[in-house]
Amino acid sequence: MIENIFNNLPDNFPEELFQTLLVNKQVKIERIVSRGHATPANEWYDQDWDEWVLLIKGEAVLAFDDGVRLTMRCGDYVLLPAHRKHRVEWTVSDQDTIWLAVHLHAG
Amino acid sequence: MIENIFNNLPDNFPEELFQTLLVNKQVKIERIVSRGHATPANEWYDQDWDEWVLLIKGEAVLAFDDGVRLTMRCGDYVLLPAHRKHRVEWTVSDQDTIWLAVHLHAG
Repeated sequence: MIENIFNNLPDNFPEELFQTLLVNKQVKIERIVSRGHATPANEWYDQDWDEWVLLIKGEAVLAFDDGVRLTMRCGDYVLLPAHRKHRVEWTVSDQDTIWLAVHLHAG
Repeated sequence: MIENIFNNLPDNFPEELFQTLLVNKQVKIERIVSRGHATPANEWYDQDWDEWVLLIKGEAVLAFDDGVRLTMRCGDYVLLPAHRKHRVEWTVSDQDTIWLAVHLHAG
């Protein structure tokens, strides 16, 4: 019944790891794990829905297509409004970076 | 734009502290902080919607009306289905316990 967000990490993964923890018609709750990974170069997330993210562990830089950069540390959270183009520009390489992402679908 | 889930805690609060971080028609994302608090005796949460909770810091015991007890530690998460009656029976007293709660409204 209980699971833990820090558990069940693979030894190796070639790119950011996306795992759905819960999904229904309203939301998708996702764990995203990076180990020095970034979004592939010149690739932007351009979503039809709002996404709320919380950085649980590690450190990352979120980049937006208007040039804004946000350094995210443990406990930081931010709302990524629909169609606000963003990418993970950098994550710390000496530990895992773990995000909780809540995708707010239109229903 | 960025906020931090560990910040802006009051020096004192007489009971569990509930703060809405984000609300829309699909969900309410909430921070719940306890400092040794519990749900008032004999009071049960009996909700019309599912709630997903993640323990970010501290330690707590969730109790259910069928006698089940769940000890929750940092990083633990669990789904509380609608009408599964529950209460916070105990939280650790020597540090804050911080929960992230995602209430999944029917829309």
